[in-house]
Amino acid sequence: MKAVKSYAAQSADKPLAPYQLDRREPGADDVEIKILYCGVCHSDIHTARNEWGGTMYPVVPGHEIVGKVTKVGDQVTRFKVGDTVGVGCFVDSCGHCRNCEEDNEQYCENGHSQTYNSLLQDKKTITYGGYSSHIVVTQKFVLSVSDKLPLEKVAPLLCAGITTYSPLKHWNVKKGDKLAVVGLGGLGHMAVKIAASMGAEVTVLSRSKSKEKDAQELGAHHFEITTEKETMKKLANSFDYIIDTVSAEHDYNEYLALLRTNGVMVLLGVPPKPSDVQAFQLIGGRRSLVGSLVGGIKETQEMLDYCAEHNITSDVEMINIDQINEAYERTLAGDVHYRFVIDMGSLN
Amino acid sequence: MKAVKSYAAQSADKPLAPYQLDRREPGADDVEIKILYCGVCHSDIHTARNEWGGTMYPVVPGHEIVGKVTKVGDQVTRFKVGDTVGVGCFVDSCGHCRNCEEDNEQYCENGHSQTYNSLLQDKKTITYGGYSSHIVVTQKFVLSVSDKLPLEKVAPLLCAGITTYSPLKHWNVKKGDKLAVVGLGGLGHMAVKIAASMGAEVTVLSRSKSKEKDAQELGAHHFEITTEKETMKKLANSFDYIIDTVSAEHDYNEYLALLRTNGVMVLLGVPPKPSDVQAFQLIGGRRSLVGSLVGGIKETQEMLDYCAEHNITSDVEMINIDQINEAYERTLAGDVHYRFVIDMGSLN
Repeated sequence: MKAVKSYAAQSADKPLAPYQLDRREPGADDVEIKILYCGVCHSDIHTARNEWGGTMYPVVPGHEIVGKVTKVGDQVTRFKVGDTVGVGCFVDSCGHCRNCEEDNEQYCENGHSQTYNSLLQDKKTITYGGYSSHIVVTQKFVLSVSDKLPLEKVAPLLCAGITTYSPLKHWNVKKGDKLAVVGLGGLGHMAVKIAASMGAEVTVLSRSKSKEKDAQELGAHHFEITTEKETMKKLANSFDYIIDTVSAEHDYNEYLALLRTNGVMVLLGVPPKPSDVQAFQLIGGRRSLVGSLVGGIKETQEMLDYCAEHNITSDVEMINIDQINEAYERTLAGDVHYRFVIDMGSLN
Repeated sequence: MKAVKSYAAQSADKPLAPYQLDRREPGADDVEIKILYCGVCHSDIHTARNEWGGTMYPVVPGHEIVGKVTKVGDQVTRFKVGDTVGVGCFVDSCGHCRNCEEDNEQYCENGHSQTYNSLLQDKKTITYGGYSSHIVVTQKFVLSVSDKLPLEKVAPLLCAGITTYSPLKHWNVKKGDKLAVVGLGGLGHMAVKIAASMGAEVTVLSRSKSKEKDAQELGAHHFEITTEKETMKKLANSFDYIIDTVSAEHDYNEYLALLRTNGVMVLLGVPPKPSDVQAFQLIGGRRSLVGSLVGGIKETQEMLDYCAEHNITSDVEMINIDQINEAYERTLAGDVHYRFVIDMGSLN
């Protein structure tokens, strides 16, 4: 075992603080990675504070990881020391269920191993995430990262990027499609960038005029205020897709009414309370209400390559690790453009 | 104009009674049809009793119509006197919107003309349905019916048949797919027959053991009781499709949990109250909750041809027109196997 520096929450009501973590020595298939940058995802906060239940303390959050390979096991063929790599939301899966065989490890029927607060496939060893100096991951779950883009801006692609890219690909968003993004946060700003890059005509739907300039700069073609009744009437039956990134309580029916025939509304956020759905909103236009969870490893690699090719990164605010608790508060207040990323060098 | 015999409701609280109806003389594109049989759909009852609002009295319900051509206009090329034909849920549409151009007249953006209690495309002339001796319909909305099958059993295909066939085709149900049908009524029994004919492994989900024998006779491979907790646990993550035909209030989440990854739950019934939907039920397995409304004219013809080829008809109970009010009560009580069909000869 190797002792590494990290930041951990010791309980739901304590701030994150320095913690000495033991990482395993790399096995034959393992890649040891020195972490350069780690994004701050809303899930980190939910887990640190046990808001979803089941947090195993101490917990080291972080699943938007970019770093350099520092050691590889004997069987590792895809990576060598010095390579730039990434790790996303999970670090292993059963490998043999229908979903794993179809490269959908995110839906592993036997339970994948999430990057933190989860168990490895031995169903015993707890996982610890990216708020640490190093991580050791089996090679299949390590992604290649191009050095072409600024790495701190690539880190959030490992969760926010793939979470938005995957449904856009799966439901075949293409040139000319009219697509709306609801909620302009970490996920929403990536949805705008990626959908626009695919040729969609992108509208940001917002409750507040204050985000209009940002929306345009991110690449949105239109901006509409959803609290205005006339606007919602005007937009009825107009979108092929709605990407709904909102985690707060809201009424799906309002948005479903904006879909064209055969339109698809993709849920990416999990509100604390369910929303009513009126059957006729779906039946009346053969509309679909669907959900999507991150993406598989193969698709994550495809997304990273796509973003490198199309020059797509996340808009980030850099912090040092000792600012993490403040960053959590600002994330909860929606006061971030659009993702905090920790410079992990600050651990030293 | 030509006076024809019919049955109409004069107000929401009056039983249906004989009514003399004026039908137009066939125009150049029109087909005049002597109605042989008309199915009794739950929508007929909702409309006769103004339960959806907007009923224009007197109303002559009926949109599962089979009959013989008695007259054709000069421009009619597809039909001749004596042909066996059908008319379904609508009798015209704008013809030039995106949906009409894609043969989805059921979603006509300018409002299609329903077979009864609706306006023709002149937006003035009220339509009257199949509880009558004759109907006059523009040729594009008239379907060819094979004489191979018993015509009284074909009539319900014009609504119950296409309403279930269309989503099965649209979402590509195929051999080996595991498909569940919720609610074994007029729609549900057709969903079982058609899905089984497509090669799906069909399970009927029911609250009552009493339907088990029927389910098997209709072609279902399995029958499960949804009120048993252990059953629902066993069935979790097991279906590729759920066809939900229930119009009573129920919880969609219970059924969504039974879908496999990428599974699709199709809503065909409109409950009086919306159901909660928990986002994670969709996100956790990239599941889809969708709706579907009857089918277009081209697809309805395809369905009729398919049913003739595969020997698929509705299970019906024949009534005379003077039994219609009793049939409504029995339909509401679920006491019909599985569709009442009126022998329109009984009008005389």
